[in-house]
Amino acid sequence: MTETHIDIRLRDFDHMGIVHHAVYPVWFEIARLDFFERIGFPFTWQNQRGIDPVMVNLDLNYLAPLNSIGQVTVQTKLLLLDGKKMKLGYECLFDSKPVHRAESFHIWTKRRKEDGFTNLKSIKLNEEEPEFYAAMQAMKEN
Amino acid sequence: MTETHIDIRLRDFDHMGIVHHAVYPVWFEIARLDFFERIGFPFTWQNQRGIDPVMVNLDLNYLAPLNSIGQVTVQTKLLLLDGKKMKLGYECLFDSKPVHRAESFHIWTKRRKEDGFTNLKSIKLNEEEPEFYAAMQAMKEN
Amino acid sequence: MTETHIDIRLRDFDHMGIVHHAVYPVWFEIARLDFFERIGFPFTWQNQRGIDPVMVNLDLNYLAPLNSIGQVTVQTKLLLLDGKKMKLGYECLFDSKPVHRAESFHIWTKRRKEDGFTNLKSIKLNEEEPEFYAAMQAMKEN
Amino acid sequence: MTETHIDIRLRDFDHMGIVHHAVYPVWFEIARLDFFERIGFPFTWQNQRGIDPVMVNLDLNYLAPLNSIGQVTVQTKLLLLDGKKMKLGYECLFDSKPVHRAESFHIWTKRRKEDGFTNLKSIKLNEEEPEFYAAMQAMKEN
Repeated sequence: MTETHIDIRLRDFDHMGIVHHAVYPVWFEIARLDFFERIGFPFTWQNQRGIDPVMVNLDLNYLAPLNSIGQVTVQTKLLLLDGKKMKLGYECLFDSKPVHRAESFHIWTKRRKEDGFTNLKSIKLNEEEPEFYAAMQAMKEN
Repeated sequence: MTETHIDIRLRDFDHMGIVHHAVYPVWFEIARLDFFERIGFPFTWQNQRGIDPVMVNLDLNYLAPLNSIGQVTVQTKLLLLDGKKMKLGYECLFDSKPVHRAESFHIWTKRRKEDGFTNLKSIKLNEEEPEFYAAMQAMKEN
Repeated sequence: MTETHIDIRLRDFDHMGIVHHAVYPVWFEIARLDFFERIGFPFTWQNQRGIDPVMVNLDLNYLAPLNSIGQVTVQTKLLLLDGKKMKLGYECLFDSKPVHRAESFHIWTKRRKEDGFTNLKSIKLNEEEPEFYAAMQAMKEN
Repeated sequence: MTETHIDIRLRDFDHMGIVHHAVYPVWFEIARLDFFERIGFPFTWQNQRGIDPVMVNLDLNYLAPLNSIGQVTVQTKLLLLDGKKMKLGYECLFDSKPVHRAESFHIWTKRRKEDGFTNLKSIKLNEEEPEFYAAMQAMKEN
């Protein structure tokens, strides 16, 4: 599990003065990037290698409205990993209380140039990038 | 089913030039408001009565990346309705091809003032607002 | 002058229920793209040629708060054009009343690859792209 | 002068992979709130008193494109203060280099209820809130 602290921005609020529901995916993206950075294979490294964990599903559970400026903590867990896919779990806490729980499901892909076009091709991460895969494995929750 | 046309904004794109995954919830909110307006009980009417269909779950399925400026169409369906809750389904089309499918789950609540604070209380919509409830019923898919 | 109609999104509002001040630049970007499309040299054409009217200044005047869902109209005028630079003026209307006036100042640049890096170089648009320049000229306000 | 550190979010980037020009106003709002908090009269205090420094102009100067994830520092200065108005200056630094300079101009207003409607009325801050005004005065740059 990794823990990421995120400063709430005033722009994150909706017209009712609570954090807009579309902001949580933005926060989880920050948490995901932090997760990859902490295991030593940051987003920029993945970009250079053409590796892209394409998100195909995001399931968001709104537990409580958030109506204060301050800082949230996102706890990110690796829930599932194999060569073809990955599932991450997120718990968003404010004042130590959970306000949101989510899961994102990703397919490992690699960008390839074909006839001048960029395409995403599904890959087996354990074969393409065994060191990155091993670092991920070590993060698996029991 | 209602159909809502939404102009993609350049700001909707991410750093890779595809629509950012956090934009779909914003589009579905537009589609949801349009749905309520078409059945004659717009968001502003709900606001005045203190009625709030609080979203507790949003399940997002990314079918295809969207990398062009243009217009998307969101088809909104009422999947489930009873006095306490509602489920809506969304299909987002670009060039007549589905690029995203989602479902949102809502609890019917009413804002009440108590000791000076605003609280959301779960209600039975059919008892509190029978006309609005009937208009919703008529939208149920077979 | 070109006129662009933009649907206000619920997400455009701030915590007080008025359009957030950072939304106007997003709307003017939409209006600017529309301006270029109408004169026959759309943003995508510019992108392919590597032409980029880099914005160096944006001056925003907030005339009245906007607190309703609906549609705004942005009127875009070419205030200044020469080979090296361009100034655009924007008037944002709601219900036929001006709510915002702005000006953006741009330098004409071209992206060039040098030693593997992409750099923006200032250009003379009239020499690099005379047809695009002529189409712009025709939009000059008297 | 106050200094505010802001984490860049991946969502802050545009389709070209540089920070979108509409993000700077969002950052300056964060810096402005931090400025008020440091002098002991935070945004929430102002809200409770109905005090609102309504922004009427924002002048944005884009000095250099920002294409890295990381942290920016915004230095906020009080450039002008009298009972009726205020001007703030912002310098945004990345890696100690200035990337953006801006000024915002504000009118001091108070929200008043009249015939059930909320209106903003221009006020003299030194008369309405002398302690807040004095705390601001002390921040004036020489």
